[in-house]
Parts: sequence; C-alpha cells; structure tokens
Amino acid sequence: MYFASDNTAPVHPKVMESLTRANAGYAPSYGGDAIMDTVRARIRELFEAPQAAVYLVATGSTANALSLATFCPPWGAVYCHPRAHIEEDECGAPEFYTGGAKLVLVDGDDAKMTPANLRQKIADTVQGDVHRVQRGMVSITNVTEMGAVYSTAEVAALCDIGKSFGLPCHMDGARFANALVATNASPAEMTWKAGIDVLSFGGTKNGLMGVEAVVIFDPEKAWEFELRRKRSGHLFSKHRYLSAQMQAYLADDLWLSLARDANAMGARLSAGIAAAKGGKLLHPTDANMVFATLPRAAHRRAKDAGATYHFWPVDRSLDGPDDAALSARMVCSWCTTADDVDRFLSTISG
Amino acid sequence: MYFASDNTAPVHPKVMESLTRANAGYAPSYGGDAIMDTVRARIRELFEAPQAAVYLVATGSTANALSLATFCPPWGAVYCHPRAHIEEDECGAPEFYTGGAKLVLVDGDDAKMTPANLRQKIADTVQGDVHRVQRGMVSITNVTEMGAVYSTAEVAALCDIGKSFGLPCHMDGARFANALVATNASPAEMTWKAGIDVLSFGGTKNGLMGVEAVVIFDPEKAWEFELRRKRSGHLFSKHRYLSAQMQAYLADDLWLSLARDANAMGARLSAGIAAAKGGKLLHPTDANMVFATLPRAAHRRAKDAGATYHFWPVDRSLDGPDDAALSARMVCSWCTTADDVDRFLSTISG
Amino acid sequence: MYFASDNTAPVHPKVMESLTRANAGYAPSYGGDAIMDTVRARIRELFEAPQAAVYLVATGSTANALSLATFCPPWGAVYCHPRAHIEEDECGAPEFYTGGAKLVLVDGDDAKMTPANLRQKIADTVQGDVHRVQRGMVSITNVTEMGAVYSTAEVAALCDIGKSFGLPCHMDGARFANALVATNASPAEMTWKAGIDVLSFGGTKNGLMGVEAVVIFDPEKAWEFELRRKRSGHLFSKHRYLSAQMQAYLADDLWLSLARDANAMGARLSAGIAAAKGGKLLHPTDANMVFATLPRAAHRRAKDAGATYHFWPVDRSLDGPDDAALSARMVCSWCTTADDVDRFLSTISG
Amino acid sequence: MYFASDNTAPVHPKVMESLTRANAGYAPSYGGDAIMDTVRARIRELFEAPQAAVYLVATGSTANALSLATFCPPWGAVYCHPRAHIEEDECGAPEFYTGGAKLVLVDGDDAKMTPANLRQKIADTVQGDVHRVQRGMVSITNVTEMGAVYSTAEVAALCDIGKSFGLPCHMDGARFANALVATNASPAEMTWKAGIDVLSFGGTKNGLMGVEAVVIFDPEKAWEFELRRKRSGHLFSKHRYLSAQMQAYLADDLWLSLARDANAMGARLSAGIAAAKGGKLLHPTDANMVFATLPRAAHRRAKDAGATYHFWPVDRSLDGPDDAALSARMVCSWCTTADDVDRFLSTISG
Repeated sequence: MYFASDNTAPVHPKVMESLTRANAGYAPSYGGDAIMDTVRARIRELFEAPQAAVYLVATGSTANALSLATFCPPWGAVYCHPRAHIEEDECGAPEFYTGGAKLVLVDGDDAKMTPANLRQKIADTVQGDVHRVQRGMVSITNVTEMGAVYSTAEVAALCDIGKSFGLPCHMDGARFANALVATNASPAEMTWKAGIDVLSFGGTKNGLMGVEAVVIFDPEKAWEFELRRKRSGHLFSKHRYLSAQMQAYLADDLWLSLARDANAMGARLSAGIAAAKGGKLLHPTDANMVFATLPRAAHRRAKDAGATYHFWPVDRSLDGPDDAALSARMVCSWCTTADDVDRFLSTISG
Repeated sequence: MYFASDNTAPVHPKVMESLTRANAGYAPSYGGDAIMDTVRARIRELFEAPQAAVYLVATGSTANALSLATFCPPWGAVYCHPRAHIEEDECGAPEFYTGGAKLVLVDGDDAKMTPANLRQKIADTVQGDVHRVQRGMVSITNVTEMGAVYSTAEVAALCDIGKSFGLPCHMDGARFANALVATNASPAEMTWKAGIDVLSFGGTKNGLMGVEAVVIFDPEKAWEFELRRKRSGHLFSKHRYLSAQMQAYLADDLWLSLARDANAMGARLSAGIAAAKGGKLLHPTDANMVFATLPRAAHRRAKDAGATYHFWPVDRSLDGPDDAALSARMVCSWCTTADDVDRFLSTISG
Repeated sequence: MYFASDNTAPVHPKVMESLTRANAGYAPSYGGDAIMDTVRARIRELFEAPQAAVYLVATGSTANALSLATFCPPWGAVYCHPRAHIEEDECGAPEFYTGGAKLVLVDGDDAKMTPANLRQKIADTVQGDVHRVQRGMVSITNVTEMGAVYSTAEVAALCDIGKSFGLPCHMDGARFANALVATNASPAEMTWKAGIDVLSFGGTKNGLMGVEAVVIFDPEKAWEFELRRKRSGHLFSKHRYLSAQMQAYLADDLWLSLARDANAMGARLSAGIAAAKGGKLLHPTDANMVFATLPRAAHRRAKDAGATYHFWPVDRSLDGPDDAALSARMVCSWCTTADDVDRFLSTISG
Repeated sequence: MYFASDNTAPVHPKVMESLTRANAGYAPSYGGDAIMDTVRARIRELFEAPQAAVYLVATGSTANALSLATFCPPWGAVYCHPRAHIEEDECGAPEFYTGGAKLVLVDGDDAKMTPANLRQKIADTVQGDVHRVQRGMVSITNVTEMGAVYSTAEVAALCDIGKSFGLPCHMDGARFANALVATNASPAEMTWKAGIDVLSFGGTKNGLMGVEAVVIFDPEKAWEFELRRKRSGHLFSKHRYLSAQMQAYLADDLWLSLARDANAMGARLSAGIAAAKGGKLLHPTDANMVFATLPRAAHRRAKDAGATYHFWPVDRSLDGPDDAALSARMVCSWCTTADDVDRFLSTISG
C-alpha cells in the first residue's frame, strides 16, 4: 500500500537487465555509445519525426529547465498553470536556467490551462513594450499535476493559441506514457502534430532508474541544447547507462504497458474511493494519480495499516474529528498491484 | 587496449549487484532512502568528519560547479591551474553556476599550481577595490589533469596560502581514490586536515555508473548546497540508486582496491613506454594516466592493432613522418589488465 | 496639460544650479567625491540612522533590483503586489539581478498588499522543502502604482509579518517624498522604525535628472551592494554629478516641497474629475497620481486641446461612443501648475 | 596638476549649456525624446551607417557589458587583452551580463593583441567540442589601457581574423575620440569598415557628465539590446539629459577637438618625462595617457607640490630610496593645460 509517489517505485527488471547487458567492456563516453544511436533512431521512429534531436538527461526538472532555457529568452514569459511542476516543484530551476524568465500563471480546473485563459494572458503581455517581459513560450504539463489528462485536441487548442502569437510550445511529459495510454493517442499526435516543439519525455516515474529524453522536433536548436546540457553538468560520461534504460523502456512497448498498468490501478483506486463512505474525488482520475478526500477516521485506519501516501497539500495534519474530511494524493505506479489497492480500499472502509 | 579514458570503462560487478539489491520494493525518494543514511555515516567515518555534510550527484562537473557556487560569490576569483578540469572541460559550468565568477589561472608544471604562483595571483587580486573581482576560493585538482598527484604536504601548502587570505579551498577529486593510493594518505589527511573545505569525491571514473559525493566539512552551507542541487536539476528522485553505488564503492575498500589496480597499470604502461624506442614521458605517471610521445610509426601500429586512446591535444593528427614524435594521453582504469598493457607495449615496439 | 508621467517633467532649477556648482575643477571619481560625503551625512541625519549605508544610482529599476539581489537569494520568493513596479515595469530586472528569484504576488485593493494576504502567501511558501523556492523578502511600493499611499502603520503591519518569518523588507520609494508628505511621517517612521531594511529613495520622478539613493539601514551588506553596483555598470565615474543632484534635493527640504506641490495638484485634479460629469475615480488619490474614468467625449476634447496622458491600461483605445467610459492615468509633478489642472478640468467639462 | 584620470575632469561648459537647453518643459521619457532623434541621425551620419542602431547608456562598463551580452552566448569565449578594461576593471560585469562567458586572454605589447596571438587563441578554442567554451567574439580596446592606439589597419587585421572564424567584433572605445584623432581615421574607417560590429562610443572620459553610445552596425540585434538595457536598469526615464550631452558632444566636432587637446597634453607630458632625469616611458604615448617610471625623489617632489596621479600598479608604494624608479600612470584630459604639464615637468626636474 505504497502510494506516496511513482518515483518511490523500483526499477523494472527488464531495465535492470538492459543495464547489465550494457555493462560489457568499454564504450565511448558522453553520448557516443552505440546504444544511444539505437535509442535515437527508435524515438524518431516512434514519434514519426526523422529529423528530431534526441537527448537523455537524468531528471525531469533538468529536461524541463533545459528545454525552457533553449527556447525562451531571459526576458520571456513562460505560460503555465499555477500547479505546474515547473512552477511549484523545481525550486526555481526554470528561472535559474533561463537567466530569469518569468512564469506567468494561467488558471483552469484540474491543473489544466484553459484556452481562453491562455489567450488572455498572452494578449495581456504587451509586446514591444520594453518595460515588460515579452511573450516567451507555452508549457503544458501532461499528465497534469492534479492527475488530469489533456486530450490531443486540448493540447492542440493551446498550441494553436501559442502559435498564433508565434510562441514555441513545450510539453512536460514526466508522465507522458500515462497520458498517451489514457488518450489512445500516438506520440506524434500528442506532440508535434498538435504543435509541441519540445518534449520532456519521462521515464523515471514509469519504471526507469533515472532517465528522461528531451525530444526537439526542429533540430535547429540541437547544438545549443547540447552546450546547455554540458554546461550544467547534465552530460553523463558513462552515458550508455542512460541509453540502456531508455532502450529497454521502448522495447516491446514496455513503456506503454507499464503506464497502462499504473493507470488501471489508478482507476481501480479512484473508483473504490468514490464509492467509499465519505470518499470524494477532487479531480478526475485520468491516469495514475488520485486526489480525494476521506474522513480522518479512514486515513487513520489506512496509516495504521501501513499505507503510505501524502495528505494534500503536504503540510496538512491528520489531527481533527473522525468524520472531518482530509484531502490526500495517492499515486499508483507500474508495480502497484490490485491486491495493494483492494487492501487499501478495504482498510478505509473500516 | 582501451586507454581512451577511465570513463569508458564499465561498472564494477559489485556495484551492479548493489543496484540490484537496492531494487527491492519501494523506497523514499529525493535522498530520504535508508541506504543514503549508511553512505553518509560511512563517509563521515572514513573522513573522520562526524559533522560533514554529504551529498550525491551524478557527474563530476556538477560536484565541482555546485561546490564552487556554494563557496564563491559571483564576483569572486577562483584560483586554479590552466589545465584544471573546471577551466578546460566543463564548458563554463563554474561561470554558469556561480553567476559569473572568474577563473584566475595559476601555473605550474604537470598541472600542479605552485605555492609561489598561487600566492602571487591571490596577492595580485587587489582586495577592496570595487573595480576588480575579489578573492574567492582555491580549487585544487588531485589527481591533476596531467596525471600528477599532489602530496598531502603540497595540498596543505596551497591551502595554507588560501587560508592566510581567508579563502575556502576546494578539491576536485574526480580521481580522489587514485590520489590517495598514490600517496598512502588517509581521506582526512588529503582533505580537511590539509585545509580542504569541500571535496568532489569521484566515483564514476573508478568503477561506478555515475556518482560523485560532495563532502562539505563545515556543514553551515549544507542547506544552501541542497537548494542549489535541487534548483539545477541534480537531486534525483530515485536517489537510492546513487546511494547504492556509493555503498558498494566504499564497502571492503573496493574504491581503494580499484584505484590501486588502475594506478598499477598506469605505472606498468608508463615504464614500458619510457623504455620503448622513441618513447618519452611528458609528465610523471603518479596515478593512472600516462602522457607521452611516441614515434608516429608506433602510434600507427597501435591504432592498426585496435588500440584506443587520444592524441594530445585531442586535435593532433597522425599525419607525418614515421619517426616524428606525436604526443598522446593513455588512461588506465580499474579494469585494465596487464595483458592489455603488455600487448600495447609489444605493439608499439614493432 | 502634461500628465503623462512625473518622469516627463524637467529638472528643478536648483538641481541644475547644483550641477553647475559641482562642475568646478577636478574631483575624485567613483563615489570618492566630497559632495557624496555631505549627502551621506545628510541622509543619515534625515533618517536618524547614523550607521546606514547610502549609495546613489541613476534609475529606480536599478535601486530596486540591486536592493533585492543584495537581500534575497536566487531561490527566494519576493512578496509583492501584482501591480508592483518590480513585477510589471522592469522587464524582469529583479529576476535578472537576483539570479532567478521568484516574485510571489500578494493581492489587495489599490495596489496595496493586505496583511492577511501577505501572511497567507508567506505561510504557503513551505519552508525547508527543497522542491520549493524559499521565503525570501518583502517588497512594498509606496506610493503604490495605483496612487494610493500606505500609512506608516500599514507599512509596519506588513513588515511585522515579514519579520515574524525572519524576512528582510524593502521599500520601493520611487515616490517616497510623495508618500511622506501624504502621511506626515518622518523618513525614519516610514522606514526602519516600521521595519524597512532597505529603501529605494527616489529622486528622478520628483525633480532630479536621474538619481535614486539606496539606503541600507544595517550596513553589514554594504560591501556586497557596492560590488553588485559596480559589476552591473551602475557605479558612475563622474559620481559627483549624482551627488550634486541629491545634495540640492535635500537642501532646504526641496524634496518635500516639490512633493507637496505635486500632491496638491493631484488632489486638485482628482477632485475636479470626481465632480465632472461622468468622472469617476478608480483609486484614492493619496499622492500625485489620478486613476479615473471619463466619458470618451471628454477624453476627445482633452486630447484635442493638447492634453497628454495615458489611457489605462496603456493599450486601451479611444474608439467608442461619446458617453462610453474610458479609464486613464494622470500624473502630476513638481512643475504641474494649478492653471494646467484647471484648464484640463475645464476642457473635459466641455 | 591633476593627472589621476580623465574621469576626474569636469563637464565641458557646452555640455552644461546643452543640458540647460534641454531642461525646458516636458519631454517624452525612455528615449522617446526629440533630441535623441537628432543624436541618432548625427551618429549615423558621422559613421556613414544609415542603418545603425544607436543607444545611450551612462557608463562605459555598461556599454561594454551589454554589447558583449548581445553578441556572445553564455558559453562563448571573449578574446581580449589581459589588460583590457573588461578583464581588469569591471568587477566581472562581462561574466555577469553574458551569463558566464569566459574571457580568453590574448597577449601583446602595450595592451595591444597581436594578430598571431589572437589567431592562435581562437584556433585553440576547439569548436564543436561540447566540453569547451565555444568561440564567441573579439573585443578590442582602443585606446588601449596602456595608452597605445591601434591603427585602423591593426584593427582590421584583428577583425579579419575574427571574421575568418565567423566571430563578431566589439570595440571598447571609451577613448574612441582620442583614438580617432591619434590616427586621423574617420569613425567609419575605425569601426565597420575595419570589421567592427558593435562599438562602445565613449563620451564620459572626454568632457561629458556620463554618456556612452552603443552603435550596432547591423540593427538585427537592436531589440534584444533594448530589452537587455531595460532589464538591467540602464534605460533612463529622463533620457533627454543623456541625449543632450551627446548632442553637444557631436556639435561642431567638439568631441574631436577635446580629444585633440587631451592628446596634445599627453604628448607634451610624455616628451617632458622622457627628457627628465631618470624618466623612462613604459609604453608609447599615442593618446592622452602616459605610463612612465621616475625616480622616487621626483615623485616625492611632485606629490609635495600637489600633483595627483596613480602609481602603477595602483598598490605600489612610494617608500624606497630616492633614486629608485617607480612607475606611474598619468592621464591628461580635455581640460589639462600646458601650464599644468609644464609645472609638473618642472617639479619633477627638481
């Protein structure tokens, strides 16, 4: 009953095997490894993007921050949701990497920006007025931090607005696989076909040890990205061990299979909570994250039984009357089992 | 015959085993893993530094750049050798991370700063003159980039000068283990007892997949370091896999044992080249790196036989008469074998 | 009828005279001029702050950005109003100078942060969570950008909250003199006695050519400020000409006298508009700035008669029916005359 | 006998008159003043560059740092002389503004880079190696910090090398007028005709209060420059007072006339020192700066008589035997008189 985060889950055995396979003899360093060539080719194929520049880094914040820094000037506005990971969970990495760009917050339910709000915020950024930060880029988090998923049409609607102002569009896809399986979209449909210019393609939360790909659909900025990656310490010397993780991830659609499992467990958990006494969903469970309130008594039983998850916001206290609602975030991962979920549901039901 | 770099070597099997062991079930993320607690305790013990702050990052440039940024203000001068890794091989990471500090170059043979040169350069940085960058910190690379090793007395001499000006001292120990076994010094003797305030304690070049520890002997700056690490994307969510590598590294003195092997192979290779016809060492081989010239004919035979290593500087060409000398860098690693070395020596002898 | 901004007004004759007086012979450069000594002494006296560090820069954005950078780390949150000059009118200067701090917006009417909102936003910045920016500092704009003035009690209430969280407090006093005469507060009462640690003490908008003082009440950070000023190009070689402006400003209470005149004209204009047909004030006119709506017909008559001022927001259009309201900003300065105001009022009355 | 620096001299009376003339009534702010239009037109005409973008800032460090930041990426190498102002006298402003570019030092006598050294240093910056900073731009200081002047042919030789590597070229012309009159070159010949892309066109050291123009010959980067200027606090609200200074400077060739006077006094002083007992020039006096050694006895007499100038380097002490040589820097300005010079020469002769 470990629902704290998908990044507390272990590495998938096939990924471990791939690492072991990669560990034979010498290999060129700094991305010159042969495995990276196959990974690059595979990602281009998957995304139907034969020209795309593909890079691996080890953390999601890095994928995001380097993507933003490459596409947004220091005086640019980055349009994102107030609950976006880049706004709330990276300790200012976007500002650090861009040299001081400003995150301009665009509201909407379930951590999804609405087209109308995005258009308004961009329009409000008066262009050509030297006293103001300038329109910079759009960043869309999919799956959102509240567990909702943008459809490809929704992504396209936001990108269309961005494009109409000439802005590049980024997708923070830390849970990209979960978003794809939730929508049955292809990688291309969810990204460049919808208007995305650069993607943080997550793996760590979905069974890898620590690898995210950055996919840049127009390779013009590729060399700049490489310099920014190196200069920030994110180019690995023993790069083959990043490549090997991604290789296993993409082989036999493992990545989609793992995300499908996690989403299924999210749905099971969500349905169970919604049906539980005092249970109430706060956001739609489109993927593997459940946001819900439960009576404090239910939480107490769960915690006593060893369930691990965060109240939400994280600084909320369990103190209070038994029947008082308390909100929580529960995240399923590739290795969450139906038994885990059912035990939890049984526990909260008392 | 793979002497291109110690970072082209594979991961030691015991490290792979440790990763596999760590891969059981769920674990707290972002450094909250239990393995990190044992690693921290072990490093404190090894360094006889019970208060030290200990952090793990994945690359050497990161360990260096975060260390410098934490101890040197944006207007500070970082005193280092012109051949230092931070000056030549990190694409400006120190400048990026510090917010624009200036690397002031202190010369000396074999990539070792001399005390006299260091004292002069610090003295030349007029203090209290607002037009100049201010004295910031000292950074010592040990093993140096030319394969020489500073003795503890030499480190202490440099640190004493730094301290006499009130400056913090950093050691870039990407090959720290190799330096230790070369000098028979203890970790404490090579660092805080000699005056080092912060150490980049390398593992990647010596059998790990990608882990360096940063050891801060006075923990006052620990929280600042943590924020800088997170903000630059270098805090791993699945941190346990960094911890597990370092755990294996330190167990049963594996780290020292691997470095001893690498240094022994360096000595064997160095002696053989010195004895070869036309062979000439350019720097003392104190550890695992050999810098030497050989006749182009010898290089041609080696390359034809499949030997892998870099001419030095890296852009030098093999073109030229058979007997014309060409310099090269050859690096041994934990997995270099005597057979490798002997075959190479036999090849160059023709 | 020139109400576009107080920075479109000329320099007061006494300031020009002071510049001419200062222009005799040679003088030490870079702040070593004797006039600066008298200015520093005078400001310390005026503020009852004998230890204060006092520096001159040429623009308000500079005074603000250097103050923030000196007191707030790169990972800090700067709490300010969404209408604050540092948020809206400096093209990201705070982010640039701080190395990427985040401006966290605290709402309230008339561009005044409310204590409750400030407390909430600070409390929401979870401290000790490495994933979030940390509490940094508070920045209060007085006069606000909407023309309202914080009383000393209101300033103290905000600073008290900041202090209760251990945060330094900044005042953007681009119109500091106008705030003082509006409240009858002393400089000390409006600043350090209320909890302000660093003040941007404006002069440019109130009759100077281009000088703002930065007053740092605890001089511990003085040297850092000097380095930041130099490093950003804001230390003037011929500094005496900044000093001379400030000297004239402070002599015989010229600064207060000019602000009193500007505020009086603001009040006269405000009262007239409020009494005009279709005139409606949008914010209280506490100082020299009037925000009001007027029918488009009134605006058209004013513009036809040569009145100069901005619609508000600045991108609003005069197109529309005669009786449709259109909001505008009108700013009085030290040289606005009662005749100017009365002619304007007469014009809009048709 | 005030030879401390040309920035200790007063403002020329015609500049003061121009400021007074500009001080009539209201004027648009932030560079929208009509005087700026005439200044822009005049500079374009003088430089035979009808498309040039022209901006005014108040200090030389700012002109340089903004020019570098606009043309050199954060990972670029800026090639300059070790004695360049940008390297020695700006407290790291170039590093701050560029986001951490590296100044790569190119030696040569009299603070003039030699073409051979420049070519070597650029060639040594291995391009396309992600571990190294990349070739960025060339910065030429004319007049050099040692008082020598590059001829237009010498500038062209350096720019040709830069251009052959595809690099933009900057001239730090803090003493641009002095360089022009020393060489009889036209503004165009000294700049874009020789290959300069962006010029810091100094005025402050030559009779202005505090104005330097930045002239960008290809206006493509103009808007970026404007944003960088604003964002760093260097856009003046009461901009007309910068414009008015530059207007007077350029009227009736005042700028060249003042520089001619300063250079003539430099020559007179230089010749007298060379002829004095124990006097020895350290660098050619091509413009208004004299670097020379004199016996300490001569310095003592000069100081006793009230002469003001710096020993060189600035931290040198007058202590020592009467006949021991001590080097010094003496700078003439537009208001240095022949009488000043002759009195000084007479004093040192004893």
